[in-house]
Amino acid sequence: MSRLKVLFHLNEAGRWPRVLLNVKNFINDVGRGQADIEILANGAAVSGYVPGAGAGATAPGGNDHGKTLEAMKDLSSQGVVFAACRNALVMHDIAEAALPAFVTVVPAGITELAQKQAEGFAYIKP
Amino acid sequence: MSRLKVLFHLNEAGRWPRVLLNVKNFINDVGRGQADIEILANGAAVSGYVPGAGAGATAPGGNDHGKTLEAMKDLSSQGVVFAACRNALVMHDIAEAALPAFVTVVPAGITELAQKQAEGFAYIKP
Amino acid sequence: MSRLKVLFHLNEAGRWPRVLLNVKNFINDVGRGQADIEILANGAAVSGYVPGAGAGATAPGGNDHGKTLEAMKDLSSQGVVFAACRNALVMHDIAEAALPAFVTVVPAGITELAQKQAEGFAYIKP
Repeated sequence: MSRLKVLFHLNEAGRWPRVLLNVKNFINDVGRGQADIEILANGAAVSGYVPGAGAGATAPGGNDHGKTLEAMKDLSSQGVVFAACRNALVMHDIAEAALPAFVTVVPAGITELAQKQAEGFAYIKP
Repeated sequence: MSRLKVLFHLNEAGRWPRVLLNVKNFINDVGRGQADIEILANGAAVSGYVPGAGAGATAPGGNDHGKTLEAMKDLSSQGVVFAACRNALVMHDIAEAALPAFVTVVPAGITELAQKQAEGFAYIKP
Repeated sequence: MSRLKVLFHLNEAGRWPRVLLNVKNFINDVGRGQADIEILANGAAVSGYVPGAGAGATAPGGNDHGKTLEAMKDLSSQGVVFAACRNALVMHDIAEAALPAFVTVVPAGITELAQKQAEGFAYIKP
């Protein structure tokens, strides 16, 4: 089996905990650095990248969004690419400067989803 | 980069505004006529093709469904293919004659989704 | 057209009736044994495999979950592969021994989704 390439597509903020768990379990299965992994957020999902925005919090109590951002940062340090659609950022009034350093902004999320699949990435919508 | 081919899959009527925005932003990014684009609707999403059905209206007041159909027609004139699953039409009691002229009816939506991907289309579920 | 290969991804228990209908319509269209079909369940969707769990029941009254399991078993006898993610089984406290014999357990659902697409399966998220 050649190296796996996986592209996760997220367009709802509430799905962040699920996708991060999916990625964590995937890395546990194949091993760190053994696959190319990208998460592309468009639509309301881009709010999950903003510190203090509270997106993705589903469990009662606690600082869940802070934990989500910490989990993203940790996965980023393991090579996972976190991308945001610029159109979605504009629509949700999010300044690019407000994003954590590990987030890559792409001009259009759909183009990114199409190009990565053309490059052989598997598409997964959690 | 060779010509991009993108297939959007829609099975909920309320997602029409989102998918049409995705397609519009995608065309703005790559340029008119620079990609092959198809939207395949099955399940309840086929009701979005019926004039007066009101599917896809989410904002309060206004003729939102009429705007959705106008946006579809405009994208169709730019080469975007709009397809409907015949099984879904039957299940939702929609006569093919009631559909706008720009809609193509396919025998089975899943077959269409499988064939287009086999032809190299990227799959996107908004 | 070469033989079609289709991978359905399910991560919500309530979507079982829809995916089973999709598969049934697909087989009606292409013919029994004319395509490779797999359904991969992760997340809460794995509860749909447990007899008596009640997952997937949406219509009022009746033994809908029993019907769902019967439909799965029938499709399995037609060659449809039913897979479950082990991580999801653990998270939902489901013992592998509680699963019907037609269910295949895979170590990680995401790996399965990535590998099957690398083998040429089309991805569909109902």
